[in-house]
Amino acid sequence: MSDVQTDSLYSDLDMQGADLQPLSPIHFIQRVSYVFAKKTAIVYGERRISYAEFGSRCRQLAAAIIGVGIEPQTTVSVLCPNVPEMLELHFAVPMTGAVLNTINTRLDAKTIATILGHGESQMLFVDREYADVAEAALAMCDRKILVIGIDDPAVDIGRMIGGTDYETFLAGGNVEEPLFDLRDETMPISLSYTSGTTGNPKGVVYSHRGAALNALGNVLAIGLSSSSTYLWTLPLFHCDGWTHPWSVTSVGGTHVCLRAIDPVEVFRLIDAEDVTHMAAAPIVLSMLIHAPDEAKPTTVRSVPVQVATGGAAPPSKVIDDMETMGFKITHLYGLTESYGPSLICEMQEDWVSLPLSTRAQKMARQGVPHVLAGDCQVVDPETMQPVPADGKTIGEIVLRGNTVMKGYLKNPKDTAKASAGGWFHSGDLAVMHPDGYAEVKDRSKDIIISGGENISSLEVEEALYQHPNIMEAAVVARPDDKWGETPCAFITLKPGTDAPTSDDLRAFCREHLAAYKLPSHFVFSALPKTQTGKIQKNVLRETAKEV
Amino acid sequence: MSDVQTDSLYSDLDMQGADLQPLSPIHFIQRVSYVFAKKTAIVYGERRISYAEFGSRCRQLAAAIIGVGIEPQTTVSVLCPNVPEMLELHFAVPMTGAVLNTINTRLDAKTIATILGHGESQMLFVDREYADVAEAALAMCDRKILVIGIDDPAVDIGRMIGGTDYETFLAGGNVEEPLFDLRDETMPISLSYTSGTTGNPKGVVYSHRGAALNALGNVLAIGLSSSSTYLWTLPLFHCDGWTHPWSVTSVGGTHVCLRAIDPVEVFRLIDAEDVTHMAAAPIVLSMLIHAPDEAKPTTVRSVPVQVATGGAAPPSKVIDDMETMGFKITHLYGLTESYGPSLICEMQEDWVSLPLSTRAQKMARQGVPHVLAGDCQVVDPETMQPVPADGKTIGEIVLRGNTVMKGYLKNPKDTAKASAGGWFHSGDLAVMHPDGYAEVKDRSKDIIISGGENISSLEVEEALYQHPNIMEAAVVARPDDKWGETPCAFITLKPGTDAPTSDDLRAFCREHLAAYKLPSHFVFSALPKTQTGKIQKNVLRETAKEV
Repeated sequence: MSDVQTDSLYSDLDMQGADLQPLSPIHFIQRVSYVFAKKTAIVYGERRISYAEFGSRCRQLAAAIIGVGIEPQTTVSVLCPNVPEMLELHFAVPMTGAVLNTINTRLDAKTIATILGHGESQMLFVDREYADVAEAALAMCDRKILVIGIDDPAVDIGRMIGGTDYETFLAGGNVEEPLFDLRDETMPISLSYTSGTTGNPKGVVYSHRGAALNALGNVLAIGLSSSSTYLWTLPLFHCDGWTHPWSVTSVGGTHVCLRAIDPVEVFRLIDAEDVTHMAAAPIVLSMLIHAPDEAKPTTVRSVPVQVATGGAAPPSKVIDDMETMGFKITHLYGLTESYGPSLICEMQEDWVSLPLSTRAQKMARQGVPHVLAGDCQVVDPETMQPVPADGKTIGEIVLRGNTVMKGYLKNPKDTAKASAGGWFHSGDLAVMHPDGYAEVKDRSKDIIISGGENISSLEVEEALYQHPNIMEAAVVARPDDKWGETPCAFITLKPGTDAPTSDDLRAFCREHLAAYKLPSHFVFSALPKTQTGKIQKNVLRETAKEV
Repeated sequence: MSDVQTDSLYSDLDMQGADLQPLSPIHFIQRVSYVFAKKTAIVYGERRISYAEFGSRCRQLAAAIIGVGIEPQTTVSVLCPNVPEMLELHFAVPMTGAVLNTINTRLDAKTIATILGHGESQMLFVDREYADVAEAALAMCDRKILVIGIDDPAVDIGRMIGGTDYETFLAGGNVEEPLFDLRDETMPISLSYTSGTTGNPKGVVYSHRGAALNALGNVLAIGLSSSSTYLWTLPLFHCDGWTHPWSVTSVGGTHVCLRAIDPVEVFRLIDAEDVTHMAAAPIVLSMLIHAPDEAKPTTVRSVPVQVATGGAAPPSKVIDDMETMGFKITHLYGLTESYGPSLICEMQEDWVSLPLSTRAQKMARQGVPHVLAGDCQVVDPETMQPVPADGKTIGEIVLRGNTVMKGYLKNPKDTAKASAGGWFHSGDLAVMHPDGYAEVKDRSKDIIISGGENISSLEVEEALYQHPNIMEAAVVARPDDKWGETPCAFITLKPGTDAPTSDDLRAFCREHLAAYKLPSHFVFSALPKTQTGKIQKNVLRETAKEV
């Protein structure tokens, strides 16, 4: 998008640059550091950091990073939980022109070493909790990487590694040092490796423009303002915390950090810090629902806590249970490649009066693009033509707009494949409803084809979630001589409940599903999960072959 | 801002355009026309227009405009009050690639003719109320301009002119006609002539990018959401209604139109339509405050109506009186050249507990840039260096960012002057407070220099507004042999109050002002105003010479 226009009445205008400024989250913190100078930006345990302090610390940290010779458009990696330093790095690294690479803290040393190598990291910030895995990963790297250890007086786990600790490093930053002068808003701001990739790393690159716009779209989607207090139940390493570090800061809300998800601590913080917003995968919501009664608040809050959830469609039972506890759920949909949330299941006025179960079904749909997410279509992947908006015809979700990634780092083949036809191909199979709301039916690779019919594994799981004894369910294809594939259900039970028989479960499912969709097998076992809490259906598919 | 980056690890990314989309208000209506299809977009009297209808009407109107041969980057003018058609034109014209020129409806025929000529208008939409002045203006034009008359069954004033009426014209649009394919977000979207200019027309040009970003900044500044109902007390011709047509639509709020400001009708609509937001010049707030008691609501609303005000600093008395009536004021500052509001007097948590008078003083400051407004500085116009943030040193407000105009149409000289040094020069004199809030002390040309000392006319006016009998006050420089200039005060009284003597007023002012700032003369008379309700100090300066 250039400024050049064809010759016309309007082509001869020149404001000497006064009318164009690159969009970037950097501007958000520059603004709030004086507009809300005295306001609390970050809470972590007893620590309270004002916006003035937050801003000046980011500024000085950026100077320190530049001071050790980090160049623009090179990679700075971080292995860190949801502590204040992780928020600071989300602003300080972009201020240097370098690219922030947040690494999933649950990864093994070998995968971390692969990421550090592929992203050509120049520097690694390591929280003391991850000292061992970081050291092991660094030992596998053939380059020298500058390591800065992040201490945390609140915990005594792990140990400090690296030549310098974070606070000493930050204090060494020369605040007179000029920061990077961002002129091109499409410059890279962050690098995130998608989970589950081995051998062929996919490093998703975001831009300053995309980060700023997705952050603002999310402000509007979940209704953040300067009165908001946001609890960090979403890992900050996951799609840059869905861009919420930038969202909350843009409006001067308060961040509440926590190192690990403990339902008791989550309920305590909601009450103690007057939390208004949080975001979490459905699995975290499940943890809250199934927390011991004594951990739960005895009175329901007068103002509900707004919870943004995504990563998987929340079963209607989860929506129902959360609302009963005083949370208000907004269902978002996206992928690492779309800066996290791209679609929002925007609530309609007339849903309020619907019975909870019907409303929950509507809310489980993935929805419509947020204000700044651009376009979403459900298309036939062969022809790229939209499928009819009939709520039945299955196609692939494709996305286009400013909140689609810049591409996969050093992977032109997959980048080209992902953007064929000028749309990002999500790999998610969905229907388009007549009201324009998309509903994911399955991942392309998770669909079950039985006797030539498509069976959505999500639909079968949704039926199983209705059963009073079932806590979690995952359904995958099992090879079958007669039908090609049949659904195989893996189930975990709620604590203290009895296992139903397979016949019981089949009879239960028959009330909710067409006969050909009934699982052929039911397996009771713990479910294998990725580091971000997603159920690993690829592992279950292997297991199903042996059932 | 190009996509080209220097050669680096990150330079080789290509998403075939899937990751970049021009920012434009056009996307806002395309989204809400299906996301909030059934929701009421526009209320006008008994009329109710849904978002689906609003979207499809804009789409068809755009097709009709293209159908008569209007080319991108040419001008389409409108002379119309705050009726639904005016909102439709704010989306339909941009959809064609043409530029929307809203004309101040209070202008005389000669000035309108000058605008139509300078902007090279191809087309003019005219509401029946403005038939006479439009016809007179068209008669002065040496080109043929296509005229479409806008009818309004709700009124019988004026008459229809033009070959076709709006509804017939719209209905003739071929909805199969492809719309303009916007590829460059810096393309012009609108053209607004600043008031008070004669001889040297200044046509302020906005871009699609700037319009979208200012609209979103305003959503955040005044807290709009899909639950908002916005009453159109701000003229839509004024800086495109400060970009609020695009703000309200972006989040799917409801617009409530009204043809003219009548305090009785304003209070009725607030109640009948459950209005949550409105914007208005301080003069309109004054009208509401001084409305007859029987027009005012007998009970104060439980949820206050959010009122954005700007165009002039609201006297603290006005803030006070409005809050007493159940309105919550947000003070904004901007100029036509900055898409309307650029600064917002962002409320601080600790202001809530201040005495109303102290708080009102803080709120009368112009404030800080809104989230998307970029940078504001108060500088010495000679050196372009920021003045000390001491709340005392006077400098000029300069602005830089995406919500600064593209320039003045066909006026490179004034465009260059306005953007000298890469900042937009506002012509407003201000101080910068230690907390980063700017406070306007005067227009450059309104400052009074008496005995070598600068006197802010606003400060003297603020003192006069404290007087219980004074409704409006305007202070200008009067030539004086001894002092060079002295302040001369023009005053209107509240209905039913007695005129104080000059000695009384001088004694009253002495309690609030340094002696050298006291007005030398007090004149009781109606105040001359521009079409946008601004007091014409240039006229008063001429009068003062004769006092």
